[in-house]
This record gives sequence, structure tokens and C-alpha cells, in this order.
Amino acid sequence: MIIITQPAVTDAQIDHIVERVEEFGLKAEVLRGTMRVVIGVIGPEDVIREKPLAAIPGVESVFAVMKPYRLVSPNGTKPPPVTIGSVPFGTGEKVVLISGPCSVESEEQTLAIAHSVKNAGARVLRGGAFKPRTSPYSFQGLGEDGLRFLADARAATGLPIITEIMDTRDLAMMEKYTDCLQIGSRNMQNFALLKEVGRSRLPVMLKRGFSATINDLLLSAEYILSEGNPNVLLCERGIRTFETMTRNTLDLNAVPILKAKTRLPVVVDPTHGIGLRDYIPQMALAAVAAGADALMIEVHDNPERARSDGDQALLPEVFADLVRRVRAVAAAVGRDV
Amino acid sequence: MIIITQPAVTDAQIDHIVERVEEFGLKAEVLRGTMRVVIGVIGPEDVIREKPLAAIPGVESVFAVMKPYRLVSPNGTKPPPVTIGSVPFGTGEKVVLISGPCSVESEEQTLAIAHSVKNAGARVLRGGAFKPRTSPYSFQGLGEDGLRFLADARAATGLPIITEIMDTRDLAMMEKYTDCLQIGSRNMQNFALLKEVGRSRLPVMLKRGFSATINDLLLSAEYILSEGNPNVLLCERGIRTFETMTRNTLDLNAVPILKAKTRLPVVVDPTHGIGLRDYIPQMALAAVAAGADALMIEVHDNPERARSDGDQALLPEVFADLVRRVRAVAAAVGRDV
Amino acid sequence: MIIITQPAVTDAQIDHIVERVEEFGLKAEVLRGTMRVVIGVIGPEDVIREKPLAAIPGVESVFAVMKPYRLVSPNGTKPPPVTIGSVPFGTGEKVVLISGPCSVESEEQTLAIAHSVKNAGARVLRGGAFKPRTSPYSFQGLGEDGLRFLADARAATGLPIITEIMDTRDLAMMEKYTDCLQIGSRNMQNFALLKEVGRSRLPVMLKRGFSATINDLLLSAEYILSEGNPNVLLCERGIRTFETMTRNTLDLNAVPILKAKTRLPVVVDPTHGIGLRDYIPQMALAAVAAGADALMIEVHDNPERARSDGDQALLPEVFADLVRRVRAVAAAVGRDV
Amino acid sequence: MIIITQPAVTDAQIDHIVERVEEFGLKAEVLRGTMRVVIGVIGPEDVIREKPLAAIPGVESVFAVMKPYRLVSPNGTKPPPVTIGSVPFGTGEKVVLISGPCSVESEEQTLAIAHSVKNAGARVLRGGAFKPRTSPYSFQGLGEDGLRFLADARAATGLPIITEIMDTRDLAMMEKYTDCLQIGSRNMQNFALLKEVGRSRLPVMLKRGFSATINDLLLSAEYILSEGNPNVLLCERGIRTFETMTRNTLDLNAVPILKAKTRLPVVVDPTHGIGLRDYIPQMALAAVAAGADALMIEVHDNPERARSDGDQALLPEVFADLVRRVRAVAAAVGRDV
Repeated sequence: MIIITQPAVTDAQIDHIVERVEEFGLKAEVLRGTMRVVIGVIGPEDVIREKPLAAIPGVESVFAVMKPYRLVSPNGTKPPPVTIGSVPFGTGEKVVLISGPCSVESEEQTLAIAHSVKNAGARVLRGGAFKPRTSPYSFQGLGEDGLRFLADARAATGLPIITEIMDTRDLAMMEKYTDCLQIGSRNMQNFALLKEVGRSRLPVMLKRGFSATINDLLLSAEYILSEGNPNVLLCERGIRTFETMTRNTLDLNAVPILKAKTRLPVVVDPTHGIGLRDYIPQMALAAVAAGADALMIEVHDNPERARSDGDQALLPEVFADLVRRVRAVAAAVGRDV
Repeated sequence: MIIITQPAVTDAQIDHIVERVEEFGLKAEVLRGTMRVVIGVIGPEDVIREKPLAAIPGVESVFAVMKPYRLVSPNGTKPPPVTIGSVPFGTGEKVVLISGPCSVESEEQTLAIAHSVKNAGARVLRGGAFKPRTSPYSFQGLGEDGLRFLADARAATGLPIITEIMDTRDLAMMEKYTDCLQIGSRNMQNFALLKEVGRSRLPVMLKRGFSATINDLLLSAEYILSEGNPNVLLCERGIRTFETMTRNTLDLNAVPILKAKTRLPVVVDPTHGIGLRDYIPQMALAAVAAGADALMIEVHDNPERARSDGDQALLPEVFADLVRRVRAVAAAVGRDV
Repeated sequence: MIIITQPAVTDAQIDHIVERVEEFGLKAEVLRGTMRVVIGVIGPEDVIREKPLAAIPGVESVFAVMKPYRLVSPNGTKPPPVTIGSVPFGTGEKVVLISGPCSVESEEQTLAIAHSVKNAGARVLRGGAFKPRTSPYSFQGLGEDGLRFLADARAATGLPIITEIMDTRDLAMMEKYTDCLQIGSRNMQNFALLKEVGRSRLPVMLKRGFSATINDLLLSAEYILSEGNPNVLLCERGIRTFETMTRNTLDLNAVPILKAKTRLPVVVDPTHGIGLRDYIPQMALAAVAAGADALMIEVHDNPERARSDGDQALLPEVFADLVRRVRAVAAAVGRDV
Repeated sequence: MIIITQPAVTDAQIDHIVERVEEFGLKAEVLRGTMRVVIGVIGPEDVIREKPLAAIPGVESVFAVMKPYRLVSPNGTKPPPVTIGSVPFGTGEKVVLISGPCSVESEEQTLAIAHSVKNAGARVLRGGAFKPRTSPYSFQGLGEDGLRFLADARAATGLPIITEIMDTRDLAMMEKYTDCLQIGSRNMQNFALLKEVGRSRLPVMLKRGFSATINDLLLSAEYILSEGNPNVLLCERGIRTFETMTRNTLDLNAVPILKAKTRLPVVVDPTHGIGLRDYIPQMALAAVAAGADALMIEVHDNPERARSDGDQALLPEVFADLVRRVRAVAAAVGRDV
């Protein structure tokens, strides 16, 4: 931690700052520059990260030297892959495809789409049974029935499933059905829910909040790991910017940065990321080129009758064609699908 | 709803769009312009708001004519004020002050601050017992003990209390202690929690998500009202922008807009909004001039030892001085404190 | 300047960093922490601010201790007010009103509006003769004719005038007519233009770019001052955010911060800031409460026939009423109009 | 144009709106819905785009049906490629590499880097002689000397050159040296400059403003085309968001959208886009996968001594390696370098 003092700081204030630092068992080194006095704090930064150092008289600002997250960071050893069912993510070689409808709408729809995405090359089936919708008047999902339809589709296709959890009270019930828990963008900082899934035996796919910094995302992942669950996948799904022509702004910058700063696999969701069907394929290819470990893409066999997000679902045949193009780009960056 | 078709739309596509609209029991009027065909949809917009019209072949875009929220909107009658304890908000005359520490840290601290803010003019006591913290390593609040200390401070001062709820499982327990439930910025779209507090008998202060549009905020409030709880206060607390000199960007534009678009009282939280102690007073005054019904301001008697957000807490004497200035500005806009 | 080294930095790299610092005539102090090595750079920071220190092997990041702007900063002496014509800004007592049409449209319109805003209490007349328009097909202003009409209105009313300059080639011509040069939001980082007006004898009102940080704004002002022109007014006029309900997001947070960080008067433009006629008055009052030295507000006597921004112009009578309310709020914060 | 009226609109107001529309020679069709009256305007939208329809009493909002840009839009014919020197852009097959130093620093540096990027596969040489710098105290470029060094490097290598123009007064002089004019991000809405380069015989690379919407970018391009210069390249170079870990957020979403909405070639600048040397290669590959027609990448042979942006320049050998990877990804999407 580096403490920058105010231009008019007094010696008494500097002494007081040093005392406060030493109270926490750390060492303070005073560096007197030409214009400013800077105080370096030596010792484990965690001890004082949360202390209100900037509230001490004479302090202008405080810079952290260390990152505030630990468990998600690379530690010099190769992280074991995170697996959904028996599908490993983050192996370095494979780019995994997750696909399925936005919402589970019926048993038939789920099964039909599951078969078609499996045939195209998807390895994991997605589908929402509990839907976080901006409006209370929108379709809220089929609930536990939806989970059953997903489990049936798994039985029929062999694809493991991922679905979203929205309420801490649902964990035990959801664990009966799903292979992976998804935390949606709007719940990325629902800390009660993060702690709860941190105690699950299931892997968790944590979607980045649409206005979360990368630092925020990593700290939310840290919540899950710090409760004992190391099986976390990070998902970039678009951020909110001033642009109005797209639904969100898919932030592919996050991909190489997350790969460098964490041990965790990185999934990209171009469907929500750009939110316009015509441009999802290009963004999917770009995500693979940027280094994504997996893609999550929504498919619907009858988009104009979808109960949610029909506007951005790919038709099964468009998805199948996209998988072929994804294979080519993956090969070009030394990976395969 | 207005449907704009693509430049190359065919007559068959137009017919199909019209058919789809009529399937929902609505009427479609086709307007053939010089360059484009536009289809006006006549009838209750709610019926088709959620339909994936943009997924129908030939559709370029769809504009809603009506607002997607209803219950929060002005309806021509004067809304009854929302009360916390016996303190009414949104009367038009009064600007109410809510104050207290960021976190409840101990019985003594809570009591001392409660007395001092009451003496300065605050009418409601705030304090966090469950704290949403970006990092799992930060102080997470005292939990139910904190609620007890708040209740004791209420008994001693007569100030009703407001505190944050973070988990659906906590509602029954929290209802035993608090007079108002706060939904924090990070949970503004935690829809499970919104529904749960929508079934409470207590009023709810809903803080705007730091990247929520005003439309998002109103739809989140609509969740609470649609579950049967009409007692909602909206709180502007700063949005996330590109600016790095402040913690957030307090968006006072939201104040007159929320006053015009809703029946609900509007609270402004300049403490989190700008997040820099030296500038909180000016933003508080500006909020009142912009038309806020209430201010929520954090106070701490020893900021450099606060367990959270000490950097932005006002000293009790600074708060007392600010209340005097708030009174003057309130009077200038025809209100009092 | 503080240099944070990478976790795996070698002693040879540290030596090389120190050498590089010393090459610039500065002193480096190496601080060995528990986890990281930090290097404090002692000496005038300007010398190395622009050096690519982060490009030196072993460096992780570099923090500046000093602000990068100098001339705009408070220096312990009371800054002389900036005057437009004979109207002083930044005296501390007065809140000055600048008003007029968005565009100069005709001699009669300019004169009529000039009289009406003068009667209401405005002290400076604004009006655009060269208009920066997003589309090439929009009205681009009357050019030098417009300047003549403004000068005529000055002659008739005694109000000094402010108008926008868009091209370095126009300075000499504009100096013949106007009392103050405006740099628009879109030209805030048109450095050729900043340098040019920095050599003018006229005061300059610099509007904040709609996505400029406060730091960027101050550095743009520094360009003007560093060319020898100390007479700069800073204008907050709304930033671009994700919100779609308003034209821009007026950032009143900038007001107290600019007042604290600079010697320069601060103007607020609520017209462009929120861009919705119904809410301009509330934002104008809030700006005064936040500490603005002046307001700039657009008025039009026939908004539905205005050639630009008619949607956000106030009617003369609405402006006159607003001035009365501004006086009350100004008085409440110890100032007058 | 679609006019949505207010809920309480009167028949007299509707008549007045219709009259105003007809005054402009257009036809108005009144559509009476269940809850609202909507007025469709039939006829060339350009005529009334700029009219302040929202200022007419009774109007709630106005939606444009047509895009406000014309010349930049696809018109059904294959656009001729834009060429810099003899290098064509936007052919569909080729991905062109533009490379060179951020600033021209000396004759030797320019020549050495020109040779190295040419050998690696670059087809156009970039280098700044006039540098837009946030601070007046930063290196501002060598001016005309820099242009001479670039021209010498062209003579030696055969690479055509691109360099930035910042001042309308410089056009004639710059035309003597350069093959393409660059408009920088900060000047994207410097309309005087756009008009000036619109009259040049040289092609123009227009960089997207860091907070410009795609619509803004297209209208700025439209300025250039509407002055008679059809040779415009659009460049995505990163937008400003809330993220602090990167310099900017490279917005690859813009690539497929610009390809769909315009006739113009699309260049991506990952150097400024993410601004962190370690992640530039991944973003470059992603840009190609997303469909970019060209990449612009900064290279420096001694980054730690560069006079600007050394922190983000690639070493020549890193660039050469990147070109090999770009070739592979280009081939995977059916293109070559």
C-alpha cells in the first residue's frame, strides 16, 4: 500500500499516519519527495486493505500494490480444468460449445433443440427455468418443471446441463437436476447467492455484471472460491455502454485479461453480448480468436414464437454452420472444438 | 407498438406480420411511406410487448409507444405518502433526512451516532447489519446483532430505522427489527428478492443499480408493487461512468424525471453518489434544489476507525452544519426539513 | 512517481529501472516490501511524466503523485475574475446568467430574444453562428452574418456576447465581433484550436467534452493557459452515459470538484446537459446549489420553429420565472444573481 | 418519421401537428390506438429530420424511420475499394496491415521501423508528425520535419504512408507528403476539419471518437463524402467505458455492424484499443475473425525510449510473429494478408 499525503501535510500528521499503520502490525517507510511525502506500507496488504486510511487527516490518496483477489489468481501451477458433467473446460486445447434455448418452454422444444445442438457439435445444453426478466410482466420461466425437461433432455442426449439459479432457497432443489449453476449478470454481486453456491458441490458459471469491472468480476468469483468451491467458470456477456445500436457491447478485451489474471476458464456469450442475430457469428469467431475457452450461444427452432429473446436466437442450421466456422478459427489459433 | 419493416420487405412478409399481430387479438394498420412500410399495432400493448416481433422475417425494428411500467406511474390521483415508522415521505412539503453510520459496528457507536444525527435534524436512522461488499475479505456486517443494536437505538431516540436486506431467507427475521427494508444497488435486479419484499408489510427503499437506466429502476419498483406492496421509495445513489476522480457519478437528472414519471418518493444518497467527503454537502444541497424528497447521508464519529466507507462519512458536526444549509435551500424551493 | 515492479522482477531489472530514472536527473528510492518492490522517484515529476516507464522490463505499473496540470490549479492566491465584456465571473458572490438562442437565425429573432433575456436578468447573450452539427444535412449556422446580428444585439441591449469558434482560420474574424469565444464539447480536444484561442486576447469558455474526464478537461484548459491566455471559463454540459431517457447526463459532481481543483470559474449548461425542456429548471437550480458561478440557458420565442434544438429551448416567460427561482436558491447558498 | 402524441393530446393539437407536417410538403396519417394517437409522416424524411417536431405542443416523442446517413450506406452496388498509394482496402479478400511507430521521432527511427514492418508484412506505413496529446506538456510531434522523414521512408521502402492532420490550415502542406490523411479520435466531430479533408484528393482514415456511437461515426463520415471525397476508411480504436484495467475498450461489435451498414472499409487499431502490449495480439486476431478489412498496429524498436505510447508498442519481432498468426486466422475466415 502506498499512501500519498496532502501537499500541506504536517509532521504531526505524518507521525499519526505512521502510528496508525504500525497499530496494524505493519511497517511504514516515509519517502520525502521534492513536492510530496509518500509513505510505503510494508507487510501483508490484506491486513489494511479495508482500513479507512484515506480518512486519516493529511492523507490525499492510497494506492494498493497488490491485487485484492488471491484464490482466482494464477499461482504458478497448472489449474485443473473445471468440468460440467464430464466435459472439461480450460484445458487449453478444446473450445467447448454450450448451446440451447434461452428459456425452457416445453418438453418437446427442449428435447428437439438439445438434439439439434448436439448434432451440430455442442457439448453442454443450456436453458433457463428461472428467468431474470427486467419486467415483472415478462415470462418468468417454468420453474422446477423446466428443470425436469432439461434433465429429460440430458437423459436423451447425454449432454450435461447448465441453468440459472436466482434464489438462495433454491440450491438444494436445483442440485437435484443440474450439472452446473449459472449466476446471471444481474446477480453477479448478489453476495448471499455467491456464498450459497460457494458451498455447492456443483461448478458455477459466473456471468459478468453488465457494468462490472474485471476487478469486480474477480472479486465475485473470489467469494465463491473462498467458500470452498474452486469450480468456477467466468463468462463475458456484454457490458452496458452508450451505444444504442446493439443490445450490449460484448467486451472481448476481457478475454485475454481474464486468461492472464486468473486460473479460471473463460466463456463468452455472444448472444447476449451483441444481442443481434445477424452479428452473433462474427462475435463468436472473434471470441475464439481472442482466446475464449468456450462459447455459449442460444438456438431456437422457431424464434418468432420464442417466449424470451427470440430476436437473438440462431436457427439450428445457422448454428450448425457457425460451428464449422468456429472449428476453422479454433484450428488457426491452435485449438479444436 | 410500431413495427418498422426492412427496405426489401415483401408483401407476403407484410401479410405474415399482420397475421401474427392479429393472432394476439390486436389490430394492425399498414402505413405505406415513400421509402418504408410501417405497421401500427392497435390494442393493449402489454399483450405483445414480450413477443419476439423483431424475429419475424421482414421486420427491421419495433418501437413501443407505451411505457412498460404501470403501477409506479402517476395516475391522476395524489399518491399517499410512504411512511417509515411515522415519518411520511413524498408529501411535497417536507425534505426528510435519513442518517447514520454506514455499518452498525457496536451498540455504543450506533447509539451515539443516532443521538447526534437526531439532534442535528435527521428523522430516520440508517445502518447496515448485512453489508454487500465487493470483496469477500471485507467486513460483512454484524448480522442479527447489528439489527438488535439498531432497534435499541430506535428505542432510545424514537427514530425509525432502515437497513439493508440481502437474502430472501432473511425477510421474516428482519421484519422483527426494522421499519424499512433497503434493497441495495447491487440487488436492484435481484428479482427473487424484489418479489419477496413485495410481499412484506414494510416499506422498501429501492436503490438504483449503479448502471441501471431509469426505465430499469422503474421496472424493478414495478416488481415490488406488482406483488402487492405499494410502499416503495426510489433512491438515486450514483451511477458508474468513465470518471475516476469520484467514486460514482451522482445522477441528479434522475430526480426531476423520477418525480415526473412516478408516484413514488425520491431519495438521494450523496454519500455513495460522489463518495468524497469534501463534496457531499454540495451534492446534498443540489439534490434538494433538484426536487428530492429525502436525503440519506452517512455520519461517523470516528471515520478513520470506521469498519466500512470511513473515507466518505461526515463528522457529526459537519452533518449538523449541512442540515442548516439544507434548510435554507429547501426553503428557497418552497419546502422545509 | 511511484513504480510498482512485477512479482518476478530481478535485481538486474531493478538496477536498470534505477539507472533509467537517474538518467533523467531524478533520484530513485527502492522500497522492498513483503511481496513487491516499489520504487519511489524523487524530483520534479514533469520531467518523467511522459517517459514510457511502463515499457521498461520488470515494471508492472506506474502511479503519478502530482497532478499533470499546473496553471489551472489553485496557487494560494485569489484568482482575478474572468470578465466577458464588463461582466465578471467567479467573484464568489454573483451567479451570472448567460442566455439566448441556440442558433442565430435572423436579426429580428436575435434582437427580440436578447431584449427578453436581458429583461429577465441575463447578463451575457449567447447565440451560435457556426454550429457543430452531428449531421452534415443539419443547419450549419449563418456564419459571419450571424456574428453581425449578435453584435447588433449587443449594441441595442448592452449585453456582451459569446459565440462558438470551430476553425483555427476564423479567429481574427471572430475577434472583430465577439466578447468571448466558446469551444464546444466536440472540440474540447481539438488541440490546434485550443492553442489558437490560447493566443487570443478574448476570454474562452471551454465546454467539457461529453466523454471527457475532469482531468482531460483541466488539461485542455491548461493548453489555453499555457499559450498565455489566463481567461478561461469551464463549462459542464452533460456527459454521455447509458441513459436513453435524457439527451445527456448533466454531471453536477463536476461543479464542486472543479471549484476545488482549479482557479477558474465554472459555468453549467443545463439546456444541453439534460436536453429536456421540462427538467431544465430543476437542473439549473441544482447547479446553483452545487456552487456554479454561472448558468447558460437557451431561450427561444418560438421553439417549434427553431432551426436547432427547439426541443430544449425555454420560452422567454419560463426563463423569466426560472430566474426568480434561481435568485432564491442563490440567496440560500449566500450568493446573488 | 413517427410522431407519438402525449396521453392527453387534444384534437386541436393533433390538427396543428398535421398542419405543421403538411407545411413541409409531407403527408400525415393519424393512427388512433387504444391508448395513444400516433402520426405517421409520409414523404422524404430528410425534409423534416431537423425540424423541432418534439417542440410542438402535444408531441411526446418522435422516431425516425430512416437512417440519417445516405452516402456511406450500401446502395446495392459493390463499392470500389479505397486505395492508399496502390494498396486497396475493402476488397473482401485481403486483410491489410498498417504499421509503424506512434510518433515519428527521427529519420533513422522511421526508416528502421519502416523496413522492419515491411519485412514482416505491413503494406502501409503509419507515423505521427502532428500528435494530439492530452497534455500540452507532452511531446507534440516533429511537424513538417516528421512528414519529410515519412516521405523518405516511403521512398526507401515503397510503403505508402498515413499520418494525422489536426488543423484545417495544414491540408495543402500535408498533401505534399502523405498518401492518406488520418482524422484522430478526438477530432472525429471537428466538423471544420471533416469538411476540409472532404475536399482533398487523398483518402481519409476516420477514427471513431472514443465516445462516439456508430451513428455519430457514420454521420462524420457522411460529412467527408458529402464534400465530394468518397475515399473514406473507418477505424475502430477503442471506446471509453468504466473499465480501468485497460486504456480503452476495443469495441469489436462495431466491425460487423459497420460492414453491414456502410460501403466503407473497416480498420481496427488494437494498439490504442486495449492499450496494453501483452494483449494486443489477441485483439488483433479477434478483429480479423470479426471481419476487419485492415489492422493498424504500432511498432517500436526501443519502446522504453519511445517519445509517445512506448508502453503499448510491439517490438518488431513480436509484430512479425503476430503477422504469422494473423495470416492463419485470416485464412480461417476465407481471407489472406
